[in-house]
Amino acid sequence: METKEILKKAKAAAREAAALNTETKNRALLEMAAALKCNLPEILKANALDMNAAKGKISDVMLDRLMLDESRILSMVKGIEDVSALPDPAGRILDMREPQPGLIVKKVSVPIGVISVIYESRPNVTSDSAALILKSGNACVLRCGREAYNTSKAIVNAMKEGLAKCGLCEDFINIVDDTSRESAMVLMTSPEYVDLLIPRGGAGLIKSCVENATVPCIKTGTGICHIYIDEAADLEKAKRIVVNAKVSRPSVCNAAEVLLVNKKIAESFLPELKKALVDDRISEGKIPVELRLDKAAAKFIDGKAAVEADFNTEFLDYILAIKCVDNTQEAINHICAHSTGHSDAIVTEDENAAMLFSQMIDSAAVYVNASTRFTDGGEFGLGCEIGISTQKLHARGPMGLCEMNTYKYIITGNGNIR
Amino acid sequence: METKEILKKAKAAAREAAALNTETKNRALLEMAAALKCNLPEILKANALDMNAAKGKISDVMLDRLMLDESRILSMVKGIEDVSALPDPAGRILDMREPQPGLIVKKVSVPIGVISVIYESRPNVTSDSAALILKSGNACVLRCGREAYNTSKAIVNAMKEGLAKCGLCEDFINIVDDTSRESAMVLMTSPEYVDLLIPRGGAGLIKSCVENATVPCIKTGTGICHIYIDEAADLEKAKRIVVNAKVSRPSVCNAAEVLLVNKKIAESFLPELKKALVDDRISEGKIPVELRLDKAAAKFIDGKAAVEADFNTEFLDYILAIKCVDNTQEAINHICAHSTGHSDAIVTEDENAAMLFSQMIDSAAVYVNASTRFTDGGEFGLGCEIGISTQKLHARGPMGLCEMNTYKYIITGNGNIR
Repeated sequence: METKEILKKAKAAAREAAALNTETKNRALLEMAAALKCNLPEILKANALDMNAAKGKISDVMLDRLMLDESRILSMVKGIEDVSALPDPAGRILDMREPQPGLIVKKVSVPIGVISVIYESRPNVTSDSAALILKSGNACVLRCGREAYNTSKAIVNAMKEGLAKCGLCEDFINIVDDTSRESAMVLMTSPEYVDLLIPRGGAGLIKSCVENATVPCIKTGTGICHIYIDEAADLEKAKRIVVNAKVSRPSVCNAAEVLLVNKKIAESFLPELKKALVDDRISEGKIPVELRLDKAAAKFIDGKAAVEADFNTEFLDYILAIKCVDNTQEAINHICAHSTGHSDAIVTEDENAAMLFSQMIDSAAVYVNASTRFTDGGEFGLGCEIGISTQKLHARGPMGLCEMNTYKYIITGNGNIR
Repeated sequence: METKEILKKAKAAAREAAALNTETKNRALLEMAAALKCNLPEILKANALDMNAAKGKISDVMLDRLMLDESRILSMVKGIEDVSALPDPAGRILDMREPQPGLIVKKVSVPIGVISVIYESRPNVTSDSAALILKSGNACVLRCGREAYNTSKAIVNAMKEGLAKCGLCEDFINIVDDTSRESAMVLMTSPEYVDLLIPRGGAGLIKSCVENATVPCIKTGTGICHIYIDEAADLEKAKRIVVNAKVSRPSVCNAAEVLLVNKKIAESFLPELKKALVDDRISEGKIPVELRLDKAAAKFIDGKAAVEADFNTEFLDYILAIKCVDNTQEAINHICAHSTGHSDAIVTEDENAAMLFSQMIDSAAVYVNASTRFTDGGEFGLGCEIGISTQKLHARGPMGLCEMNTYKYIITGNGNIR
């Protein structure tokens, strides 16, 4: 079907979706989960088609992201079931006033409308996004990368089967059949149909959406995450946090990329840290972290000399840039100049330093004495997430169900006039 | 000063503004109000300069908007004092969780940063915006129309005097000296300095901002507001509401422009309405409302024949387009196709019709048995407003202090790792 046609149907469906009650939505989600399970063989077959076509054309990491097996599908099923158990974000009364007798002004959370997600190859994005968007009372239009089309289409078909089983409109969940650049442009430039666009993927995809979109768009983010070790830090905690933030999963956006160390504790801290990140890991047969050091840090430990670009790069790898600073204010200034507004941490036992840092760092998540790796919808207790926003308007940080709602004012009176 | 220079200073000031406590901000607002009063002669002198230069060049309505006298300045003073009395929107804890022992995740409201307002000639926008933006912990960069520059500059200078008197940074409040198109473009395209742009003015200004802005921008809205009179309406209430919504102030965005009447009550309702909007007003020496009727409505009353465009026009005048519909669903469909998403009303005693309408109409304010004229920050009890948003992301409807905040997550732990 043509992309515009799909959008037209989705827009009509969105109005219906907004009127669904919580029970109906939950029932639909459980049927969608069941249908996904029933269609396991079909989905695996479609995935084999995609995998065969993609081999040799995309990297092994990408191939692994695309690959489905029974256990991955079952965890997608579980994901949808989990969403059905979450509270309904729509219909919450956010505020209520009675500015004149009998005139009730209610601020109520309501669905946004048609939410489009442009993503790459991970099949679970298909089911996660569809589940979150439906539960929040919206209709979705998904567009996956070309290499994942058959898999995603099979997943969407299964979910539509679930909707049909409840007697619900199948147009609540849609996938674009055209995986060319053109269809992405249509989604980006159809404000009459698309109420919100969420690009999920690499920096190139996000940049293209932000630059071309005439529809409202939420930038999900790259993370150049910083950890600042204050002079008043507990150095044991500091080491534990840096190691976790750097090596527990270096390829994700909430991993630390830059370490700022207060000069007063650099001499005692940096050798200990190097031991944990480099020497111990080598003797354990693990990949050591490559340290890229400014001049001051290089006085205390060995490593590569850092260049300017190392403090502006999301490595997503076993690499850590290290810089020494004179005080908390210098750390704050550096972070304000170089952070992508994702997650930044201070390690300190000094409450004033912690408060100053929390107030002045303008990022979605600001940590005191904890690892940046917690920036995640699941970890924050939102149940799941549809992305992590690094912008400030509407949604910031992990976006769950509530962020898929806007609000409207419903005013009831008894003939009140102004 | 060059616009970029002003932006740079504002960005630095915004970080300081975010750290101000409520008491300091309130004291600053009261000093700003006092300084405005003290500078009354200077402001009047500057305004006389603008008025003389503008005479003959802009319309009488625009001239009246630009004109200041003592009472108008005193009401601006009162406006700033009122803002100081409102609760501080920053620092509210919106949500708090403890996903693992000792790891506290707080979702806290925080200022947005640098907020720029591009507006036209009303001098009170200068003081209102500056007050709201400062109270919410942000720095502002104002840009008024060329014809209002001297007046606005004098007001800003007075407010800066107030800030200086408290020993605060004068860069919290800024006005762009260059009133050419270029300076507006700089504001629209400097995401490194401007965190939010709010255009306040005519459709042309808003369109230009939406099309050109690479910074986050909140569209404030034109209002093609509808009133639907249901078959179950109390016709006395209906008449009172339509008259109020149409003639109490036709030039504003929350005035009604289109009336939809259920066919079953059209014959009894329309003649009564015409009497109130046309005949009675003529005999009272008031301007009568021009009725533009679809064919069905024209069977019951006299008026001009409506054309297609009449149902897509914000008249801002004594004009009302009238159309008959078969039922609530047809009314909803018409509104969904023609509304600008500002304010739409139903008049009915039927709870089901009211609920269907409230759910299906996707506008910032949906009214049941009340006049659309209430869509206003003051009327909604927000204290005041910086505009009315007709978009769905971030802010919708009247925007007060809370809408000048975003949020961030502040996470404190005790060495917690993931």
